[in-house]
Amino acid sequence: MTDFENSDLVEQDDLEGLYGATDTLVREVKTVIAEDNWDAAKVLVQPLHAADFADLFEHLTQDERRAVVSRMEDALDPEFYSHLDESVREDVIESLDTERLAEVVQELETDDAVDLIEDLDESEQQELLEAVPPGDRVVYEAALRYPEDSAGRLMRREAVTVPNYWTVGQTIDYMRTDAELPESFYNIYVVGPTHGPLGRVPVSRLLRTARPVEMAEIMDMDLKPIPVVMDQEDVAFLFRQYGLASAPVVDDDGRLIGDITVDDVVDVIEEEHEEDILKLGGVREDDFYDAVIDTTRARFSWLLVNLATAIVASVVIGLFDAAIEKMVALAVLMPIVASMGGNAGTQTLTVAVRALAVKELTPTNALRVGKETLVGGINGMLFAVLVGLVAWFWFDSTEIGGIIAAAMVINLIVAGLAGTLIPLTLDRIGMDPAVGSAVVLTTITDVIGFLSFLGLAALVLL
Amino acid sequence: MTDFENSDLVEQDDLEGLYGATDTLVREVKTVIAEDNWDAAKVLVQPLHAADFADLFEHLTQDERRAVVSRMEDALDPEFYSHLDESVREDVIESLDTERLAEVVQELETDDAVDLIEDLDESEQQELLEAVPPGDRVVYEAALRYPEDSAGRLMRREAVTVPNYWTVGQTIDYMRTDAELPESFYNIYVVGPTHGPLGRVPVSRLLRTARPVEMAEIMDMDLKPIPVVMDQEDVAFLFRQYGLASAPVVDDDGRLIGDITVDDVVDVIEEEHEEDILKLGGVREDDFYDAVIDTTRARFSWLLVNLATAIVASVVIGLFDAAIEKMVALAVLMPIVASMGGNAGTQTLTVAVRALAVKELTPTNALRVGKETLVGGINGMLFAVLVGLVAWFWFDSTEIGGIIAAAMVINLIVAGLAGTLIPLTLDRIGMDPAVGSAVVLTTITDVIGFLSFLGLAALVLL
Repeated sequence: MTDFENSDLVEQDDLEGLYGATDTLVREVKTVIAEDNWDAAKVLVQPLHAADFADLFEHLTQDERRAVVSRMEDALDPEFYSHLDESVREDVIESLDTERLAEVVQELETDDAVDLIEDLDESEQQELLEAVPPGDRVVYEAALRYPEDSAGRLMRREAVTVPNYWTVGQTIDYMRTDAELPESFYNIYVVGPTHGPLGRVPVSRLLRTARPVEMAEIMDMDLKPIPVVMDQEDVAFLFRQYGLASAPVVDDDGRLIGDITVDDVVDVIEEEHEEDILKLGGVREDDFYDAVIDTTRARFSWLLVNLATAIVASVVIGLFDAAIEKMVALAVLMPIVASMGGNAGTQTLTVAVRALAVKELTPTNALRVGKETLVGGINGMLFAVLVGLVAWFWFDSTEIGGIIAAAMVINLIVAGLAGTLIPLTLDRIGMDPAVGSAVVLTTITDVIGFLSFLGLAALVLL
Repeated sequence: MTDFENSDLVEQDDLEGLYGATDTLVREVKTVIAEDNWDAAKVLVQPLHAADFADLFEHLTQDERRAVVSRMEDALDPEFYSHLDESVREDVIESLDTERLAEVVQELETDDAVDLIEDLDESEQQELLEAVPPGDRVVYEAALRYPEDSAGRLMRREAVTVPNYWTVGQTIDYMRTDAELPESFYNIYVVGPTHGPLGRVPVSRLLRTARPVEMAEIMDMDLKPIPVVMDQEDVAFLFRQYGLASAPVVDDDGRLIGDITVDDVVDVIEEEHEEDILKLGGVREDDFYDAVIDTTRARFSWLLVNLATAIVASVVIGLFDAAIEKMVALAVLMPIVASMGGNAGTQTLTVAVRALAVKELTPTNALRVGKETLVGGINGMLFAVLVGLVAWFWFDSTEIGGIIAAAMVINLIVAGLAGTLIPLTLDRIGMDPAVGSAVVLTTITDVIGFLSFLGLAALVLL
C-alpha cells in the first residue's frame, strides 16, 4: 500500500526534545539532589512543563521526593500537583500545610481544584475549605456534592454564554471586556431566557462572521447538553462519538451550569481504559506507585477467588482418580484441554467485553453468540485433529487420541459460548463484565475441560 | 467523601436522546427495510448524526446493509463512511462505483479522505486517484507516501498560518476573506520566513486582543511541532501529556505542513487501547464484524502457539509419571500451583505492560522488579499456608501439604519476577510487550508450577 514499512516509524526515542522528563534528565536531577545542590536542581527543572516535572518527580525515591517538596516548594507550578499520579499525590499533599494547599487550589481551574480536593479525607477537606475565600468555597462545595466520576466533577464552571438575541459584534465586545472568562475555550454557547443552551458557535466561526449577524443565525443546534449527574464514561462516549471539543453541562432544570472540555475527557478515556485493562488482568487499580503491602493486599483477594476456582477444578479431577491411576497419561494430557479452552474463551471474552464497552454488542445483535460458538467449533475440530495425532503418537494409543480430540471439540465450543454469554449476562444484570467474566470463564473451561476428557476416558477405559 | 454513591450515577439508559442509534430505532429501521418502505427509512434516519447512522448500519445484516446502500445512497452523508468500522466499510466501499467514491472522498477533509483511500487495494487506489481532480490527487498521493499510522496520515493539510510580523487586525481580516480555511480550528500558527512554526495563538485569545497588537506578542512559544513521520502512538502521548487541542506538523526541514486536531487523536487513543486490550487477550484485531472464517483463522495462530506451550507443560508432567502413578493426589493438586502462578503473573504483567505504555516503567525505575518479586513472595507465603492446609486435610498427609506449600512460594516468586522481566526484556529488544508477554509468562508459570510441585514430590516420596 505504501513504500514505507511500519518499522520505519520514528519510535519513542524521537520524543526526545518534545517530551521533557527523559531518563538522562532524571539521572542528572538525582545527582544534584544527592549533592544537595538545589540551585542546580532548579535550573535543571525550570524549563519543564508541569506534566513533565510530575513524571520526573514520580521517578524519584520517596526520600528524594520529600526533599524536593521541602526545598523547592516555591518553584513548583500548582498544575504540577494535578499531573501527579494519585498515590504519589496523596503522599505529597499530606506534607503541605493547609495554607499552602489553599493557595495551590485557588490557582487551578475549578475542575482541577476539585480533583485535588476530592482525594483529601473529610477533616482535611473541611480545613481546606475554611482556608479559601467564601466565593471559591461555595463553588468547590457545590462540585463536591455531585457524585464522584460524574459530569459535575469534570466540568469547569467558567462556561462562555451569550443571550440568543445578541449579535456577533456584541459578543466580541463582551469577550474583550469581561476578564472573568476562562483562559482558553472552543465554543460559545447561546442560551435562552431560562439559561438553557440553544446552540453553540465555534470560536473560529465567530471570528469569521460579520459583526451585525445574529448569534442565533450562525449557531449549530446539534448540541449534546450533558446532564450534570451523567457518568464520566458516558460523557467520554459522547465526545468520541461526535468528535466534540467541548460540551455544555445542564442541571435538572435544563439550565447551563458549566462546560466540559476535550482535554479533561482525554484524561477520562485514559483512566477508563486503564481500568478496563487492569480489571481484565485481575488487578483492581494501578498500583504501580503503591507500597508493597498495599499492592499485596489488593492482589490477594483476586488470587483468593482464583484459589477457590482452582480447587473446584481439582475436585473434578479427584472424581476420576481411578482412571488416572490406571492410565497416568491422562494426568499428563489433561492440562492441554483445559488450557486451550481457557485461551480460546479469553479471546472470545476479550472481543465481547470490548464490544460491550463501545456499544457494538447489544441485545439486537446477540446472535453473535452463534458466530462465536461456530468459531469455537471449527477451531475445536482443527485442534482436535492436531492434538489427537500428538497424543496418539506420544502414548501409542488411538483411544487416547480419540478421547482428547473429542474433549477438545467440546471444550472449545463451550469456550465460545461461555466467552460471549458470560459478559452479556453480567452486563444485563448490571454488573461490570470486565471484572467477573474472566474468573467465571476459566472456571467453566477448566471444569468442562477436565470433565469431558477424564469423563470420556473413564467411559472408554474402565 | 460525598453523599452520593456510584450506583446513583446515571447509566447507559440516559444516553437515550443524546445518542442516536438506540435499539428501538434499530428495530424500527429493520422493520421498514423488511417492508421495502424506503421513504419511511429515510425519515427515520434523517435526523441521525453520521456517526450514529454508522452504528445503526453496523447492526444490520449483510443483506440489509446492501439494500440500504443501493436504495439510500443519495441520502448518505460522506462522513458516514468515515465512521464505519473497518471491516464493514471495506464491504460497503466495494459496492460503490469509482465515480461515487471519488465524490465521497472529495467532500471529506484530507485526513478522513486518506483514511478511506488507504484501505483500498493498489489498483482501486489508482483508479480512484485518476477519478479525482489533479489538485486533490497530489494531496492524497503525498499523504499516502507517509508511513501508515504516522502523523502524516493523521494531519489535515488545512492549517491556519500567519507570518510573524502580522497584527491581530490583519489576521482577523485575512480569516474573514479567505474561504479556504478549515471549517473549524483551535489554534492559529505563527510562522517565520521559512514557514517554520514559531508559536501558536488560541483562537479565543485572538478574539480578546486589540487589533493593533502583533501576533508575535501574544503567541505561546511552548509549541510541540510534530515530525511528519512520528508514530501516531507518540502523537497521542504528546496530546495527552500536554492537554493539546491541536499541534502543528513539520517536515524534515522544519516547515509547517499540516495540523493535527484532538478529535482525530481521540480516535487514535481509542484504537491503540483497543489494540492493547485485544493483544493481551490473544486476539490480533477487533474481529467483531468479520466473517466466521476470518475470525477462525485470526484466532487459530494464537491458539497454535498456546498448544505448543501446553505440550511443553505436559512433557514436564510426563517426567514425573512414576510419582503420579504412586500417588494420584499429585495429579489432582498440580493444576492449582500452575493456575495460581499464571494468575499472579498476569496481574504483575498487566501492571507492567500498562506502566510501559504510559512511560511510567523505564530503565531508571526497573528496581520495580524487586517490588513485584517481594509481593509475589508475600502472597506466595500466604497462599502456601492456605493451600497447604487444604491439601493436608483433603489427602490426610502433612507431606503433600508441605510440598504444595513450598511449590506455591516458589511459583509465585517466579511469577512476580517473570511478570516484570518479560515485558521489560521484550520492550528493550524492540518487541511489543503486550503481544508476546502473556504466552511466555504462562509457559514459565506452568512449567515451574509442575516442575516444583512434582519435582519436590518425587524427591520426598520416591
